[in-house]
Amino acid sequence: MRVAEIPTPAPVVDAEALARNLTTMSAALPRTRLRPHVKATKCTAIARDQDARGHTNFTCATPAEILGMARAGLGADLLLANETVDASRLRAMAQCGARVTVAVDSSETIESAAANGIAEVLIDVNVGMPRCGCAPDDAGRLADAARAKKLHVRGVMGYEGHVVGLADRSARVEQTAKAMELLAVAYAAVGGDVISAGGTGTYDINTYATEIQAGSYSLMDGAYAELGLPFERAFAIVATVIHVSPTYAVADCGLKALAMDHGNPSMHDARVLFCSDEHVTFVPEAPQHVGDNVFVWPAHVDPTVALHERLYLSEAIDADANVIDPWDVDLRGWNVDR
Amino acid sequence: MRVAEIPTPAPVVDAEALARNLTTMSAALPRTRLRPHVKATKCTAIARDQDARGHTNFTCATPAEILGMARAGLGADLLLANETVDASRLRAMAQCGARVTVAVDSSETIESAAANGIAEVLIDVNVGMPRCGCAPDDAGRLADAARAKKLHVRGVMGYEGHVVGLADRSARVEQTAKAMELLAVAYAAVGGDVISAGGTGTYDINTYATEIQAGSYSLMDGAYAELGLPFERAFAIVATVIHVSPTYAVADCGLKALAMDHGNPSMHDARVLFCSDEHVTFVPEAPQHVGDNVFVWPAHVDPTVALHERLYLSEAIDADANVIDPWDVDLRGWNVDR
Repeated sequence: MRVAEIPTPAPVVDAEALARNLTTMSAALPRTRLRPHVKATKCTAIARDQDARGHTNFTCATPAEILGMARAGLGADLLLANETVDASRLRAMAQCGARVTVAVDSSETIESAAANGIAEVLIDVNVGMPRCGCAPDDAGRLADAARAKKLHVRGVMGYEGHVVGLADRSARVEQTAKAMELLAVAYAAVGGDVISAGGTGTYDINTYATEIQAGSYSLMDGAYAELGLPFERAFAIVATVIHVSPTYAVADCGLKALAMDHGNPSMHDARVLFCSDEHVTFVPEAPQHVGDNVFVWPAHVDPTVALHERLYLSEAIDADANVIDPWDVDLRGWNVDR
Repeated sequence: MRVAEIPTPAPVVDAEALARNLTTMSAALPRTRLRPHVKATKCTAIARDQDARGHTNFTCATPAEILGMARAGLGADLLLANETVDASRLRAMAQCGARVTVAVDSSETIESAAANGIAEVLIDVNVGMPRCGCAPDDAGRLADAARAKKLHVRGVMGYEGHVVGLADRSARVEQTAKAMELLAVAYAAVGGDVISAGGTGTYDINTYATEIQAGSYSLMDGAYAELGLPFERAFAIVATVIHVSPTYAVADCGLKALAMDHGNPSMHDARVLFCSDEHVTFVPEAPQHVGDNVFVWPAHVDPTVALHERLYLSEAIDADANVIDPWDVDLRGWNVDR
């Protein structure tokens, strides 16, 4: 099967670019120095490749990702780097046969974890981004509360999400240092073996953390691709031209096939005008023909992956390239009973 | 089951608001004056309700929606209001047992339809929005070409998508008239029984079309809700508060649960700061507690629906309300073999 034969719209992954990205990261952060984040790809086939390279421990954003990874036999050490108080999902994770550690940042999340059979936790610390995570000086109290509930506190987590996308590397260096100073305050009060932090934008900057939670490096994002990182964009949507006018053309890849939170997608040799539910209208540099394939590069890969059922691993992002494997996006959705 | 027991994030539909929207529209556009667009809800349960109210003919945006409607027994008269040259999807539609009409706007789309067993077409005309559709003065030539291929040309279609969202009603009136003047030029050359156009924003303005393709009126969109139409917002995402800080709170509803092309979602009694993959960070007016339910109103409903597996029809958009029925979003995705 060639890329041109894939029913459109559908994601195409450049196998060689993906392999180079995985190799580059494994060289920089070998084995468990990297805890790959599966939310970026939602695909156990890619996680299996990461595992084979020695990255046996994984980061997940949802209980469904934890359970899917456990089912796939990739449950050696799974971290839910997120908070939940959903009793049935906590119980399902506790009983899934994998080693599961969950992030906690409040009395409520600690009590829910303990009440539903979770054995191990990290204290999640706010290191500067207004999202989850306790205040650094509250981490010790929460660790004590968790231990009082018989939870094993493995250490701390503190994601510098406000830093990973900064365009200027020296700003990333400076801000990561500040964030990790906050995490160190928490760690001093919590202890444990694990200091989990970082992302693709700080993978070689954050040397304080014992493990880096990068995920986007594998397929690479439009925004990250501006940072001068040694990773290549390996993911585009193949679409079919369905209309050609004298001044623009239209392909079958729209808002239901593209995450738009970072704005319009881009196209090589074409300027994107706008997207509708099932269309992208664009101004091509060269004449297009109805039936031609074009490639649409989403501005944000992570939530785009979640829109699709399959990733088509291919020899290249090119209509004439061969498809190597259709990979299920098997960690989609939030329901544990899928 | 109460709304508070739904695993989050998940869409909740206000049953009474939905019923009022359907009733209001049916009174304005009875029976086949309305050809409801299923892309807005991707849910045959809602289509079945529309059918029961006499709207037996439906509009679809994808072959998968056509095939899903046919499987659901709602195939009396299905219009693919979109172009495709996918031979296997055209054949599947031709053989699905439903009456299927497809939009064509070029020699290529006509030839593909004819070659793959499609019997009936509409000539799709560009009435002012740069997307699909032929030039009005080319419609007659295309109708002749289609008839030469033994296709039954039922008439014309021309969606005034550049008009439906205009804030000022008098502008919508004026621009709809201009768009329909273009469609009339095409219709004069094409003939047939069908003049298909319109949307929720012009449902009572476009009196030229024989049928209106409105869909969003059933659940209503944030943008449309600004237009003073007699339809209510009936769709929100129920989420769970997972973190509370002194100045903000976080709930489990993010970029993977919300279409963001129209910007941030809104929340009652709270200001949304930003969304991450699985989080919304917001500033609530009243104190929040971990485990509380909150409701997040997406800025664009159509592509948000496509992110979810189920719509929870409920007595109200309220944590204490009863869930009436979990409806499958069974027209999701693009693959005809689902």
